[in-house]
Amino acid sequence: MNTRTLVSDLAALPDGPVTVAGWVETVRDQKKVQFVILRDESGAVQLVNPAVREVDPETADAASADRFAVTEQISALGHGTFVKVTGELKHDERVKLGGLEVKIASLEVVSEALEPPIAADSSLDKRLDYRFLDLRNPKQNLIFRVQTTLLAAFREYWIEHGFIEIHTPKLMASPSESRAELFEVEYFDTKAYLAQSPQHFKQMAQAAGFGKVFEVGPAFRADPSFTSRHATEFVSVDAEMSWVDSHDDVMRMHEELLAAGFRAVADKHGDEIRELFDVEVTVPSLPFPRIPLAEARRIVEEGGYTIPRTDGDLDPEGERRISAYVKEQLGHEFVFVTDYDTGIRPFYHMVHDEDPTITKSYDLVFNGAEISTGAQREHRIEVLEAQAREKGLDTAELGSYLDFFRYGMPPHGGFGMGLARVLMLMLHEASIREVIFLFRGPTRLAP
Amino acid sequence: MNTRTLVSDLAALPDGPVTVAGWVETVRDQKKVQFVILRDESGAVQLVNPAVREVDPETADAASADRFAVTEQISALGHGTFVKVTGELKHDERVKLGGLEVKIASLEVVSEALEPPIAADSSLDKRLDYRFLDLRNPKQNLIFRVQTTLLAAFREYWIEHGFIEIHTPKLMASPSESRAELFEVEYFDTKAYLAQSPQHFKQMAQAAGFGKVFEVGPAFRADPSFTSRHATEFVSVDAEMSWVDSHDDVMRMHEELLAAGFRAVADKHGDEIRELFDVEVTVPSLPFPRIPLAEARRIVEEGGYTIPRTDGDLDPEGERRISAYVKEQLGHEFVFVTDYDTGIRPFYHMVHDEDPTITKSYDLVFNGAEISTGAQREHRIEVLEAQAREKGLDTAELGSYLDFFRYGMPPHGGFGMGLARVLMLMLHEASIREVIFLFRGPTRLAP
Repeated sequence: MNTRTLVSDLAALPDGPVTVAGWVETVRDQKKVQFVILRDESGAVQLVNPAVREVDPETADAASADRFAVTEQISALGHGTFVKVTGELKHDERVKLGGLEVKIASLEVVSEALEPPIAADSSLDKRLDYRFLDLRNPKQNLIFRVQTTLLAAFREYWIEHGFIEIHTPKLMASPSESRAELFEVEYFDTKAYLAQSPQHFKQMAQAAGFGKVFEVGPAFRADPSFTSRHATEFVSVDAEMSWVDSHDDVMRMHEELLAAGFRAVADKHGDEIRELFDVEVTVPSLPFPRIPLAEARRIVEEGGYTIPRTDGDLDPEGERRISAYVKEQLGHEFVFVTDYDTGIRPFYHMVHDEDPTITKSYDLVFNGAEISTGAQREHRIEVLEAQAREKGLDTAELGSYLDFFRYGMPPHGGFGMGLARVLMLMLHEASIREVIFLFRGPTRLAP
Repeated sequence: MNTRTLVSDLAALPDGPVTVAGWVETVRDQKKVQFVILRDESGAVQLVNPAVREVDPETADAASADRFAVTEQISALGHGTFVKVTGELKHDERVKLGGLEVKIASLEVVSEALEPPIAADSSLDKRLDYRFLDLRNPKQNLIFRVQTTLLAAFREYWIEHGFIEIHTPKLMASPSESRAELFEVEYFDTKAYLAQSPQHFKQMAQAAGFGKVFEVGPAFRADPSFTSRHATEFVSVDAEMSWVDSHDDVMRMHEELLAAGFRAVADKHGDEIRELFDVEVTVPSLPFPRIPLAEARRIVEEGGYTIPRTDGDLDPEGERRISAYVKEQLGHEFVFVTDYDTGIRPFYHMVHDEDPTITKSYDLVFNGAEISTGAQREHRIEVLEAQAREKGLDTAELGSYLDFFRYGMPPHGGFGMGLARVLMLMLHEASIREVIFLFRGPTRLAP
C-alpha cells in the first residue's frame, strides 16, 4: 500500500517528513511562493513551495535545479489533477486551514485532468452529468459518509434485536405492487418485471418462520414524474416482523431504529453537518407523536388549507402542514400519521376490527414530507383474498404471493422507507437527486 | 407486541407460566398424552397435553371441559399451522429436546395450513417451488443467520477501515461488463441494461475522491447456463480503494476481510454448523497462499490433469485441483491465483510493467471453486483506451465510463465476490440454489 498519510491524520503527527496524496483543489501561483490546496477523502491541506523561478544551468547546484523543476510542475498543475507529494509537515497556527502545512520536497503527477466542466454554481442537471466531479465537493462527500453511518446504525439495531438480513430477488414473474409503474425485462423466452418493493418476499420470510427480517436494496418504479422527491431507482430500507399485535408494534421498532440511526449520525458527523449544511441533527425523542389521518386532515383544514385530493389522503402541502403543526405544538420533527382509509391503502394492509373503513397502517412524515409507509399485514388468506377482490384485483395475477399464506402464516407487519428521502430531509437538501450516488429518472440513465 | 417468549430463551427461565408461538412441526397424538413439537425462528420445544378424550357434558367441571377442548384442538392440528400457546414451563432432564417442556394450558390456532407439498427428500426443484416452506428447515434458516453474521462482520471491517458504503445504479445506459449476458429493460422511450456488476461505478467513486468504498447488492447476468454455481441474479460483494501499489494491496484487504467474516461466523454459529452441516468452519490464517496462474497451471498439469481450455485459464476441475494441492501442501482452504494472462482479463485490469502478457490481477479460490476476481485497475486514460482497442472494443460503446478517467483518477483496485459462492463453499453445500433466498435461473422466476 502506498504509505500516504490521510489529511485528517496529519494534525496528530509531529513535524517531519510525510507523504500525502489526493487531488489539486486550488493553486495560488505567486511570484515568490506557491500554495496548493490538496484534498483527499478525509480533508484538505495546504502545500507550500518557495518558488525558484530561474536557475543558471551552468552554476546551479542540484538542490536549486530540483526546486526549479518543482516550481515549474506546480505552475502547470490543473485543477483536479491527482498528485502524490512528499514534504515536511509543519504545524503553524497562522495557517488557516487546520493550522499546518506541508513544504513540498517532491511532487508526482499521478493523473492529469481536463479543464473542469462544472463549477459550484452549475445547474443541478449539469452537475449530475459530471457527478464524479460533483462528488468531490466536501458537502457531497459528507452525505455518503452520513449514509454509511446511518445504515451501519440501523443494521446494528436490527442485528441486536435478532433480525435476519435477506436479499430478495429484483427479477419477478409478477408485479410486486401494481401493474402501473412497472419496468419490463426481456428474460430469455419470457418477460420479467423489476421489483417495485421487496413486499412479497419480506412477507414470504414470515411464512418461512424467519421471525424478523431486514433488507437495504434497490427498488424500481417506472414513474414518469420529475418531482424533487421521485426517482426510478431508489434504495429501499425494509423491515418486517412476525407476531405483532398491531401497527403500533411496527411503529415502536421503526422509531427506535431511527433514533439509533440519528444518534450515530449526530455523534459522528454532527459538527461537520453544522459546518457544511448549517443544519443541526436532532436525535428524536421517543415515542414519536402519532396522529390518526382523520385528525391530521382536520388539523390541516382548520389551519386554512383545503386538501385538493378527494380520496382522503394528504397531498405534499398537507404533509408539510401537519409536520409544521407537530413541530410547533410538540417540538418534534417526526410524526406517525396512522389509520389510513382502506380506500387509499393496498389490499394487504390489515383493516381495523372495530372500523372496517380504516387500516392498521401509518405513514411516517419527517421534516415536511413522507419518508415511509408501514402496516400490519393481513395474514388470514380468506380475508386477504376478499380484500384483493374488493380492490378489483385478479387474484391469479398475484402469482405465488397468495400461496405464501396457505401453509400457515403468523401475524406480521413492517415498513418500507426511502433512504434518500431520509437523507434529503435530514440535511435540508432541496432534491433527492443531491443525496443519491447516481440519480435515475425518466430522462437520466447516465453516467 | 405479543408477549411471547422465544424458544431459545426458555432455558434461562424458571419453571412457571410462559407463552410461546410458532408453527407445528410434529404432533404425536397418543391416547393418554399428546406431544406437539413447536418451532419458531430460534428453535424447537416440546409441548405436552394430558389427553382428555371424553367428557360427560352433564357432570363435567369447567376444567375438564377445557382439557377436552384442547385435546380435540391438538388432534386436529396440521403440520405447519401457526399457533400461540400458553402453558407451564417445566425443566425436566428426561426431555431430549432441550431438557424442558411446556404443559399446554390454552392453544390458539392463528393460521391453518394446507397439507405440506414438500418433504425432506423432495427434489431441489420441488423444494424451490415451495421455498417459503423449505426455509422453515433449521438448516436453511441457519444459512441466512450465517449470512447475516458474515455480512455484518464484513461491513464492520470496512467501516473500521474508513470505507464509504455506496449504492450504485442497477439501471445503466450501457453494458457494465460485456455485450453478452445482458438483460434489456424497456425504459420509457429507450432501453436500459441491468448492471452486470458495479464495476463502472465503484471506479467512478475513486475519481470522486471517495478513497475506499464497498457495496453489497444485486448484479444480473443473462447467463443461460444451468450449473450449480450460476444464477441470473446474485448478490455481489464489492470493494474498491484508491492509492494501491498493486493487486497485492487488494489481496491484503480481501484476506483480512474474509478472516474477520469467518471468525465472526465460527464464533457465533460454529457449534450449530457442526451439528446441522457436519462442517467445521475454519478461520483462515493470514496471509493466504498466493500462486501465479502459470505456476498453478504447471502444478495442475504435473498432477496429471490436462486443462482442456486453450486460453490458459483454469477450468472448474483445474480450480478443484489447485485448491486440493494447496489444502494438502499448505493446509489452507484459500488460495489467491495471481497474475492472469492479459488475454483472459478485461481491458481495465492493469498490465505488469515488466511483463505485458500478464495482469496485476487475481482469482480467489476457496474450497475448490473461484469465489472472486480482483485487480489493480488501469487508471491512465491513454493506456486504458489502448487496452480497450486491443480487445476490439468500440470505446464509444463504453459510454461515460472512460470520462471518469479524464479529469484525474488515482491508482486503485478492488474485487467483486459472489456472496452465495462463499456460503455454498463454506457450508459444503452442493448448489448455489440452496444458499440463495430465492434463486433466479433461466427457467426460474418464481416464487
